Amino acid sequence: MKSYKELTKEELLELKEKLEKEYADAASKGLKLDMSRGKPSALQLDLSNDLLDVLNSTSNMQAENGFDARNYGVLDGIPEMKQIMADIMGVPSDNVIIGGNASLNLMYTVMSNAMIFGVLGSTPWSKLDKVKFLCPAPGYDRHFAITELFGIEMITIPMNNDGPDMDMIENLVKDDESVKGMWCVPKYSNPQGITYSDEVVKRIAALKPAAKDFRVFWDNAYAIHDLYEDDKDVLLEIFAECKKNGNENMVYEFCSTSKVTFAGAGISAMAASGENIAEIKKKLTIQTIGFDKMNQLAHARYFKDINGVLEHMKKHAALLRPKFEAVTDTFEKELKGLEIGSWVKPKGGYFVSFESMEGCAKAIVAKCKEAGVTLTGAGATYPYKNDPKDSNIRIAPSYPTEEEMKQATELFILCVKLVSVNKLLENA
Amino acid sequence: MKSYKELTKEELLELKEKLEKEYADAASKGLKLDMSRGKPSALQLDLSNDLLDVLNSTSNMQAENGFDARNYGVLDGIPEMKQIMADIMGVPSDNVIIGGNASLNLMYTVMSNAMIFGVLGSTPWSKLDKVKFLCPAPGYDRHFAITELFGIEMITIPMNNDGPDMDMIENLVKDDESVKGMWCVPKYSNPQGITYSDEVVKRIAALKPAAKDFRVFWDNAYAIHDLYEDDKDVLLEIFAECKKNGNENMVYEFCSTSKVTFAGAGISAMAASGENIAEIKKKLTIQTIGFDKMNQLAHARYFKDINGVLEHMKKHAALLRPKFEAVTDTFEKELKGLEIGSWVKPKGGYFVSFESMEGCAKAIVAKCKEAGVTLTGAGATYPYKNDPKDSNIRIAPSYPTEEEMKQATELFILCVKLVSVNKLLENA
Repeated sequence: MKSYKELTKEELLELKEKLEKEYADAASKGLKLDMSRGKPSALQLDLSNDLLDVLNSTSNMQAENGFDARNYGVLDGIPEMKQIMADIMGVPSDNVIIGGNASLNLMYTVMSNAMIFGVLGSTPWSKLDKVKFLCPAPGYDRHFAITELFGIEMITIPMNNDGPDMDMIENLVKDDESVKGMWCVPKYSNPQGITYSDEVVKRIAALKPAAKDFRVFWDNAYAIHDLYEDDKDVLLEIFAECKKNGNENMVYEFCSTSKVTFAGAGISAMAASGENIAEIKKKLTIQTIGFDKMNQLAHARYFKDINGVLEHMKKHAALLRPKFEAVTDTFEKELKGLEIGSWVKPKGGYFVSFESMEGCAKAIVAKCKEAGVTLTGAGATYPYKNDPKDSNIRIAPSYPTEEEMKQATELFILCVKLVSVNKLLENA
Repeated sequence: MKSYKELTKEELLELKEKLEKEYADAASKGLKLDMSRGKPSALQLDLSNDLLDVLNSTSNMQAENGFDARNYGVLDGIPEMKQIMADIMGVPSDNVIIGGNASLNLMYTVMSNAMIFGVLGSTPWSKLDKVKFLCPAPGYDRHFAITELFGIEMITIPMNNDGPDMDMIENLVKDDESVKGMWCVPKYSNPQGITYSDEVVKRIAALKPAAKDFRVFWDNAYAIHDLYEDDKDVLLEIFAECKKNGNENMVYEFCSTSKVTFAGAGISAMAASGENIAEIKKKLTIQTIGFDKMNQLAHARYFKDINGVLEHMKKHAALLRPKFEAVTDTFEKELKGLEIGSWVKPKGGYFVSFESMEGCAKAIVAKCKEAGVTLTGAGATYPYKNDPKDSNIRIAPSYPTEEEMKQATELFILCVKLVSVNKLLENA
């Protein structure tokens, strides 16, 4: 296809007229689709319904360690669930704490602890004049929301195809003690679907931050969320790398079964060094009575072990793949060569990330919304919701049906074309 | 029975010898009983096993509002569960937020929010030189642990038979802006089983604290935990009283089903004014993705409504009553008139509180432990674990069997007698 950039003003005006007609047609269809959040579809949730048959009134309610899962006690989780989450993260189960249904709340809790109490004896971050966090972007809006809530200054780090810009990160952490941490979604990153290369993981593990209480928040949300059985990204296990550098205390890892079983009623977990775990547990024992062990017991018995989890994930992949491909294949067919946007076909995770021409993302999202398709707000993938180029759009294909996804993608492409033509006309 | 205080030195020495023999006998029995925490017994937990049959793989997973309880969404709880928890507290469901499995974590969260972010626009408490909390004591050790963790100065408020010393409280709050709040367990208080009188509730609701961000943490943990169907304490609903004084924003109320269904896997809730709820939700939406709605759905369908909950509580009462009476009846029989201790026969809640002679509690708890009966650590019921009179002992009768409870009480009484005789001999 001919690049829009090569079109004359007259050709652009002609195209605009045609596209506007198409858009008016599409808008009149009364679409009502929500692709704003990475929500599993009902069919995906159905995959785990048997989880509800695992425990019933006649079940043995004892965990492997003999504890009655119904009662108080066992702060860090029942052993069988710790083992499964440890295996998902590739760490020893001694380094794992099981949380409630939301790993985001574990992230909030450790961030909040650092603010109020400091980290392994450091000055509480809230007592410092300035605290900065490195935020590879586009990234996960809820990470940035936590950071912003605490008044932490966010520094946007550009993403390369193999992870965040490590030169910039190394440079920023080495002299500035106020740089206290970094957010990472290291596998099938939200929203780009990028997996950090071995080199990037090694460089992160080898960081020598000026701040001794620098912490990497390693949100391994999509650790096992592959779309293609025969073409999986493999993420280097970070704690082993940290150990080589005496850096075990530098990383907090998080994961959950929110996109494995029930999005709103799964099991979360975190992993950290022995020293970090001990500190977190010491606080946790005051912050709560303990997490829901009945849900842990149901999950552990349902999956039996990591293999059970991985088998289960294949069923998710089968449901998600066509939806992702409905997006990327249509992009390929309709947008290739037009030079009005770029994208990466992700091998896992929950999103397709689209880079429009500069200054077009907000307008595209608004146009889609006008015609009934809700996308994540433009800019949401950047700190302070401020996408400097106004170009990143996050598409969440999981919730609508494949058919809806096709319709929505057609509309999206129409909006991309129309907004791009308008942009080009501004400068024509 | 003759008061120990009237015994001569010789009589005391003789008694001491006899009691020591009895103690040696008891100690040799190899008892191993834990009465340290208010844990429900296995039989109590069994009462709720049917909860596990409510949802299965073929159930309709939609809450009343049409939301799929398996998925993300609905931050403050599904409507049917909000209604039940609202009815337990006697407040409108619009004023309720459903939490996770631990109301303690809701308390921690709002306290933590006040420290970091302030309350309805006030200066964050962590930015103040001094923050003080009023702590009616004996009270709940985990309340005091949260307060201490934040470095808040705890002021011990003596408990009367109808609640905390209100003269002292009114006096402390009226001029001192650094007094920011107060802990209350207003019904069947932990550990004394005292229910605040209407007058006390009215005086709390009418407080005019110097600090505009003063907050009462109203932990209504035992709202429906009556032991006697025909002799229940009735607690005045505090928000209605607050309203009369324009004080709706002053109270955060908490409750849970931890001692209704499963101690470790129940449903927690809080109630507050519209303004407070709005503020808390605004933070919660960043602090977590949402709480486990599947457990809410199971609970709501299991109970149907407040009447279902109240019927269920009668079964708990039937199991708990004999254990409580094993303690108080034996006290009555063995200790009455000896003037070496006092207690109140509670009409609900989870504890029997024993007041020994001054300076005896630690020694009694240690003696019990030596012979195999673990009680809550002496002093634990006071701020900083510091019982100024060293006299309060908390007994938790719920977990052991009735027979074990009898044995444990016999031993306890023996230890009380022995330690008291020793104490009297010190001054004889």
